[in-house]
Amino acid sequence: MPTLYHAPRSRSTSILILVEEMGLADRIDVVNVTVSRQDGSSGPDPRNPHPEKKVPYLTDGNDHVRERGALVAYLTDRFPESGLGRPVGHAQRGAFLSWLFYYQGVMEPLLVLDWAKIDHPALHATFRDLDAVFARLAEALDGQPYLLGGGCSAVDLLLSSPFQWLPDAMPEHPAIQAWISRCADRPAVKAIAARDSAEQ
Amino acid sequence: MPTLYHAPRSRSTSILILVEEMGLADRIDVVNVTVSRQDGSSGPDPRNPHPEKKVPYLTDGNDHVRERGALVAYLTDRFPESGLGRPVGHAQRGAFLSWLFYYQGVMEPLLVLDWAKIDHPALHATFRDLDAVFARLAEALDGQPYLLGGGCSAVDLLLSSPFQWLPDAMPEHPAIQAWISRCADRPAVKAIAARDSAEQ
Ligand SMILES: N[C@@H](CCC(=O)N[C@@H](CS)C(=O)NCC(=O)O)C(=O)O
Ligand SMILES: N[C@@H](CCC(=O)N[C@@H](CS)C(=O)NCC(=O)O)C(=O)O
Repeated sequence: MPTLYHAPRSRSTSILILVEEMGLADRIDVVNVTVSRQDGSSGPDPRNPHPEKKVPYLTDGNDHVRERGALVAYLTDRFPESGLGRPVGHAQRGAFLSWLFYYQGVMEPLLVLDWAKIDHPALHATFRDLDAVFARLAEALDGQPYLLGGGCSAVDLLLSSPFQWLPDAMPEHPAIQAWISRCADRPAVKAIAARDSAEQ
Repeated sequence: MPTLYHAPRSRSTSILILVEEMGLADRIDVVNVTVSRQDGSSGPDPRNPHPEKKVPYLTDGNDHVRERGALVAYLTDRFPESGLGRPVGHAQRGAFLSWLFYYQGVMEPLLVLDWAKIDHPALHATFRDLDAVFARLAEALDGQPYLLGGGCSAVDLLLSSPFQWLPDAMPEHPAIQAWISRCADRPAVKAIAARDSAEQ
């Protein structure tokens, strides 16, 4: 059984939500670990096998998975029955992978840079800016409730997740705000978020 | 037939190299486009369907793929015969996806931040630093010539590619330097690099 290393109220919460949405709660062991917190309230956990003591980290003892986009791709491919992924050969496979890599390689860096108020021509050339991210989200949500169409997929869960933690980053765009609420209101999201915020 | 939008001597060159290594040169149409260059020598190409006029971009008319990590995962999954990927179910599937997402989400941002000489505690918390990247590469290359073992895979091609363009970023680490040379010396890499640098 694969083990997921998780720290409550952290980036790994979005993976716990995915596991719940996929109905995998009894097929994945969750081990809670501590991580360094910005406020200094806790530190790295020696039991965490992640080489930088981060979360999430998934391992079956031999293979391992780090970076949220990789965990989402790995889990949805391995358990395709959930319908939350787009398996190899699916007509939206490319779009699915693109959102995951765009999240990891563009959207997360831009959110951190925006939070830290850092700007530079080389960063703009590589990542553009949050307005471009919001333009991409708004285009995708034009006329459909979720990024890949009528149903919620794993990319909606991942890409909407930072706005639960960074409400200041929430764009003024009604279609994007409605999508973020739609994702946050899902029963699995609410249940895991509630359980997670009560944990040590 | 899928079309790859490419600009000579750019990030998309690594995808052209992958296509060549995979033996897909006659199964993918390559369309050369211009892109904005840092030196101002050229600008965005109206024929490029990428929403931010970047390269690489792959499309079959319906589905599309952006971000290099996504293109690598998409192509190696779709054409598993090449042996350069790690298909769903493979014992190294997690490690394979992890390198791709780590490249896109950590290594590329750190290379750009290093080049622009930008540092900040929030960036360090999220991405760590290039020393941590080199530590991960060195660990993986300890006792084996390529990141996933004895044979060159698509992750070697992607992760070694920036050092062809950013020789200043080359670490002082002999095992990493040997790996970068090993990748650069491959016939397909040399052939495509030579052809690419001769193009307009
Ligand atoms: N890019 C990684 C980021 C993981 C990450 O930074 N996780 C935070 C939790 S919010 C962490 O473990 N921080 C502890 C530390 O930096 O030592 C991912 O998407 O999985
Ligand atoms: N994260 C993207 C980066 C793509 C990218 O920035 N490509 C450059 C070529 S080196 C580009 O198209 N630049 C043109 C521009 O920024 O307008 C990827 O990995 O595919």
